[in-house]
Amino acid sequence: MTLTKKIINSGDDVVDEMVEGLLLAHSGIVTSVPGSPRSIIARHGPRPGKVGMVIGGGSGHEPTFVGFVGKGLADAAAIGNVFASPPPDPILACAVAVNQGAGVLFCYGNYAGDVMNFDMAAEMAEMDGIEVRTVVTTDDVASAPRDQRHKRRGVAGNFFVFKAAGAACDLMLPLDEVVRVANLANDRTYTVGVGLSACSLPQTRRANFHLGDEEMEVGLGIHGEPGIIRQPLQTADAIVDDMLDRIFAEMNPQRGDRVAVLVNSLGSTTLMELYVMNRRVRQRLDALGVEVHATWVGPYCTSLEMAGASVTLMHLDDELTRLIDLPCDCAMFRAG
Amino acid sequence: MTLTKKIINSGDDVVDEMVEGLLLAHSGIVTSVPGSPRSIIARHGPRPGKVGMVIGGGSGHEPTFVGFVGKGLADAAAIGNVFASPPPDPILACAVAVNQGAGVLFCYGNYAGDVMNFDMAAEMAEMDGIEVRTVVTTDDVASAPRDQRHKRRGVAGNFFVFKAAGAACDLMLPLDEVVRVANLANDRTYTVGVGLSACSLPQTRRANFHLGDEEMEVGLGIHGEPGIIRQPLQTADAIVDDMLDRIFAEMNPQRGDRVAVLVNSLGSTTLMELYVMNRRVRQRLDALGVEVHATWVGPYCTSLEMAGASVTLMHLDDELTRLIDLPCDCAMFRAG
Repeated sequence: MTLTKKIINSGDDVVDEMVEGLLLAHSGIVTSVPGSPRSIIARHGPRPGKVGMVIGGGSGHEPTFVGFVGKGLADAAAIGNVFASPPPDPILACAVAVNQGAGVLFCYGNYAGDVMNFDMAAEMAEMDGIEVRTVVTTDDVASAPRDQRHKRRGVAGNFFVFKAAGAACDLMLPLDEVVRVANLANDRTYTVGVGLSACSLPQTRRANFHLGDEEMEVGLGIHGEPGIIRQPLQTADAIVDDMLDRIFAEMNPQRGDRVAVLVNSLGSTTLMELYVMNRRVRQRLDALGVEVHATWVGPYCTSLEMAGASVTLMHLDDELTRLIDLPCDCAMFRAG
Repeated sequence: MTLTKKIINSGDDVVDEMVEGLLLAHSGIVTSVPGSPRSIIARHGPRPGKVGMVIGGGSGHEPTFVGFVGKGLADAAAIGNVFASPPPDPILACAVAVNQGAGVLFCYGNYAGDVMNFDMAAEMAEMDGIEVRTVVTTDDVASAPRDQRHKRRGVAGNFFVFKAAGAACDLMLPLDEVVRVANLANDRTYTVGVGLSACSLPQTRRANFHLGDEEMEVGLGIHGEPGIIRQPLQTADAIVDDMLDRIFAEMNPQRGDRVAVLVNSLGSTTLMELYVMNRRVRQRLDALGVEVHATWVGPYCTSLEMAGASVTLMHLDDELTRLIDLPCDCAMFRAG
């Protein structure tokens, strides 16, 4: 079996070496918590009276999570091994580091390992007198039926939830309000992805599943979790139409509604392809009379070198529009 | 032979559909020149008395070229088919659109087709009374011997040359000065790349060359042009060491010197790998006592979905440092 070629030193060191390289590249924006090298904190995030926001999860999804740490977005990220939750300790270290007396929000994708470890860290933080509230993201429409949204996974739509919640923190809203905003953002965010290839972990360099030469899988998870249907590769327009049909069925868009759009690469799918997709996204939204307030296109939540893409819509209201528009300045993303 | 899976509608339409999708995504930043859809112009670039800067080349290298159009960087980009120079007409349309009476700089990578078409457009512009000067980028150290720098190709280091020249235009320097700055930036910019896989054109979906399962090619061009050596895949540190040895041999860095660093993905190589590489870049520069003024990591000049990466150093002086630091605001890149 062919092994995937990667530019690494060793599969065991790759996350620590990545962290070292990114702290060097973005030293004006982020640093690590002393004594906890997998806890990355914004240099200009935490400040007196501000709710601290901690995100995190496994590596391999860059720029998610660590790229979204900075002023106006997350205050800290706990970094796990590739596709593995961070243990409680670095999460706790993040909570302690961002705590400014106004409480801390934990916000991350809904995966069993992450839930377990973030919950444990929350308990430990509470014992230290830090109030912690949690919002897990569940934007992946394909990952569970509509009446079981709480079972859905968090994928690229994370970005919108983080952006809105981070802006709420930056505006000095109290913890209850930040939690309300994060839940609102998550409830109004919908993602559908399609995978065209597997990816391979640095330790094994072997494909984590198999797709046929002309096959794609709708709803494939960002760790290779099974999707809902495998079918022959479709055209970009047909792929986008299917994604949007699934999203519209839940979002129920009305003429005059407003959305933010994210067309995301899972890894090796190119900007060229993403922009072709965005063209079709806009055609469909225009036909419905839905206004696109903002569009992001690029790799925002990846699955190592997987080929594939996702489309996320955030169904905006006035509050979310304001929060999405607020400037932020992170290692791998800037806005405003 | 296995065909590469891509999310497109048809290979013939992919560039036009990409352009449509990107103009929709970034309508606040760029638009197309009326009557010339492959000529993309910055909404807030050209202004009275400012030298206009036109970049361009084949598609498939996104965000190069079109992503670097915006205030403080290029004023316009002419977009060719995949890996093919734009013809003279869209280049001329860019020149006419950005001309504000102070002359126009053409700046692009050194490829025969581009040189021919940009030169023809320059002649046509001169006939319209527009003064055009040209600087071709030649940063690819591996593409010709040192004493034949003028034969070298322009690759990821384009970005630094465009950034410096675009800043010079934004500072309202006259055309002679902009040309001097662009040449200075190019002379002080050095790139070495390594390819781990081929890529495939949307029309054929077939690999444009073949590399063995455990092979890499040093100096591979961004259209698959042959490099200087094929060898077994090395570790990240060994790859970076080889790249930097080749760069240092020309740049001759001295203790106290200052550089800007770009660690670039050719397509499917992940941020994780790039940051691992950046760690080694910094170790080597630190050991020499060379100061890293700024670092960019990510896909800046790609070759469709090729696996591989490049490292670029720009040997800064005070002038280039100031120009690199100047803010800019483009569709796919912001700084300052």
